[in-house]
Amino acid sequence: MTRRIAMTIGVREEKLDEYLRLHEVVWPDVTARLTEAGIRNYTIFRHGLTLFSYFEFDGDDLEGAFAFIAEDPVTQEWWKLTDACQVRVEGTPDGEQWLALDEVWHLD
Amino acid sequence: MTRRIAMTIGVREEKLDEYLRLHEVVWPDVTARLTEAGIRNYTIFRHGLTLFSYFEFDGDDLEGAFAFIAEDPVTQEWWKLTDACQVRVEGTPDGEQWLALDEVWHLD
Repeated sequence: MTRRIAMTIGVREEKLDEYLRLHEVVWPDVTARLTEAGIRNYTIFRHGLTLFSYFEFDGDDLEGAFAFIAEDPVTQEWWKLTDACQVRVEGTPDGEQWLALDEVWHLD
Repeated sequence: MTRRIAMTIGVREEKLDEYLRLHEVVWPDVTARLTEAGIRNYTIFRHGLTLFSYFEFDGDDLEGAFAFIAEDPVTQEWWKLTDACQVRVEGTPDGEQWLALDEVWHLD
């Protein structure tokens, strides 16, 4: 069964250009790790200084997939750059960067 | 080629429960019209009083698909109910209800 996950986070106004530039060419090791973890159809959208991400996961252990991604040293280096551009949203749990949204409705 | 579209709109605090209840059982004619128009993998997410929608479209005339949906009398009745729950976001073009977001990045 496909899980559909959406998340949100802010981006710092003075870091917006840098964030967009970073995403013109996301490091291949970072995207490879996401794919290896089973994350797919991943898109990041922007509304002003608010980012929305959407991705899908077909496995049965999303937490495990996140842990697998977080263990990757290259991803950790990547996150140092991207985290510096972002502002966590109020209500985001400790230890998490993006805030997961609630699903209201879905149509296949 | 698949187009991935994300949009945002607000929901009125006093209408949130009604909006959620409406989406527990979206009218079958409304979902059928979306499907007939080529809209698929459509999910609405919520962050507080902000809605975030994501859907995919494989055709080559998204404007035409939107017009086809908007012509449907049942969808028009549905929108009377949902529009009353929503608050259009600043910057949404005249004549549009949801504001389309910019894509920052995508991974298949």
